[in-house]
Amino acid sequence: MEIHTLVIVGVGLIGGSIAAAARQRGVARHILGLGRQAASLERALQLGLIDEAPSDSRTAYCRADLLIVCTPVQYIAEQVLEAAAWVSPKCVMTDAGSTKQAIVENVEAGLPPDRRFVGSHPLAGSEKRGPEHANPQLFEDRLVIVTPTPRSDTAAVRRVCDFWQALGARTRLTSPEDHDRAVARTSHVPHLLAAALAAALPEDLLPLTATGFRDTTRIASGDPEIWTGILLQNRQAVLDGLAAVEAVLRRFQSALVDQDPAVLHELLLQAKRLRDALGS
Amino acid sequence: MEIHTLVIVGVGLIGGSIAAAARQRGVARHILGLGRQAASLERALQLGLIDEAPSDSRTAYCRADLLIVCTPVQYIAEQVLEAAAWVSPKCVMTDAGSTKQAIVENVEAGLPPDRRFVGSHPLAGSEKRGPEHANPQLFEDRLVIVTPTPRSDTAAVRRVCDFWQALGARTRLTSPEDHDRAVARTSHVPHLLAAALAAALPEDLLPLTATGFRDTTRIASGDPEIWTGILLQNRQAVLDGLAAVEAVLRRFQSALVDQDPAVLHELLLQAKRLRDALGS
Repeated sequence: MEIHTLVIVGVGLIGGSIAAAARQRGVARHILGLGRQAASLERALQLGLIDEAPSDSRTAYCRADLLIVCTPVQYIAEQVLEAAAWVSPKCVMTDAGSTKQAIVENVEAGLPPDRRFVGSHPLAGSEKRGPEHANPQLFEDRLVIVTPTPRSDTAAVRRVCDFWQALGARTRLTSPEDHDRAVARTSHVPHLLAAALAAALPEDLLPLTATGFRDTTRIASGDPEIWTGILLQNRQAVLDGLAAVEAVLRRFQSALVDQDPAVLHELLLQAKRLRDALGS
Repeated sequence: MEIHTLVIVGVGLIGGSIAAAARQRGVARHILGLGRQAASLERALQLGLIDEAPSDSRTAYCRADLLIVCTPVQYIAEQVLEAAAWVSPKCVMTDAGSTKQAIVENVEAGLPPDRRFVGSHPLAGSEKRGPEHANPQLFEDRLVIVTPTPRSDTAAVRRVCDFWQALGARTRLTSPEDHDRAVARTSHVPHLLAAALAAALPEDLLPLTATGFRDTTRIASGDPEIWTGILLQNRQAVLDGLAAVEAVLRRFQSALVDQDPAVLHELLLQAKRLRDALGS
């Protein structure tokens, strides 16, 4: 796969890593960066991640063969629709947002009939942010979920999958709804629990933490703006997922109140079996 | 510090790592291993972690200059008291259990007046188990909490601190009660949340997990027997700590139901500040 002009909107950790991977693997001839954060664009230029950061985004849109929006989820639909007014019908647009249903619905509600968008979400990331943490290997052997709808152009779906595979990732097609329900459980609820654990710790106990607390709360260092958007966009699935975890917490609590080692052991064993299946 | 004969009861990950560190740093001339698990003792001998695994534990107790019990917490008090009947009055006994109040109370209730025990807890470990995972660096620059009581012999307290420092650790004196309340928050409740998250995940979603879920649930791979004992011995502090985390979860839940980005952002920021203070 070779893309003549790749346009990345939002050159932070994810957008910067896409640029780095595309560069290293020869996936794109020209890489253009756009975004609200002038400082991020400046750093991305200095780091050689992008070739240009055009001040007039419309000319960048016009040149795009593939355009990917990597901003916080609450801005994605709006930015895709802004680009859609200017890109050529041949251009394929996608995104890297951690939620899909609201984005895909909002984009499809406003997308001109001859413009092409397919949502995607790379299951890769970091609690760090900014192009200085860009990593060309970030997507290697990681799963990217691509979320077509009945409206999607099949050639565009294929092209988005080819793009991620060219960056080293595996791809899987899922509906936006199924995507959101699944990642609520695998990512958004874990984030919420990690944040609750960190927020609940009295500061004077920090010196008494060890690797367990560090691992369990690592993702709580994530950017609050990004995560506020994700949690709100996927609120119903997050609330449902939280209820499922709390049901297990209730069983732990009852077993502690009843001093029941058999129930505690069974719950811990069930957790261990699932976690061991993941590897370290 | 040089110990003539170090006796380790329970040569698993922690006991094996103590042996490895003592060996590497020349802290003990002879290292004897005891325990219920014949296979662990055999592996520890083969790995050169211990010099002997005497079948008659009483002769080992008689030879001990320092004795440390590294078994699951529910067995520690009983094993210290068994050893206390045979060790010399010069011997100092300690343990490496993750709970302290029940252990120290039970030991002190049965300890002959001329025998010496001081509880300790190294804030270091791993979700792995067995002497094959022993690591001589496990305690390097880690904190060990030593929990004397008004009954403790001050020379014994000093000797236990010297021992851990000789293995590379830092030490801090705390009462058994304060220790248990603190580690409920920094270790036992995080373990319970990690286990609840893992146990609540539908198995078919495993392929959709990424580093966030892995980090957050890593400790759920811990040994269910060990953790059943810890959670039960520290049940009241664990229940209190769980209630504190659930109070934060309630605030997240309300903010999601109310679709309130300001409250979500504030909670996430509070979590990030605390977590960032720990470093990665």
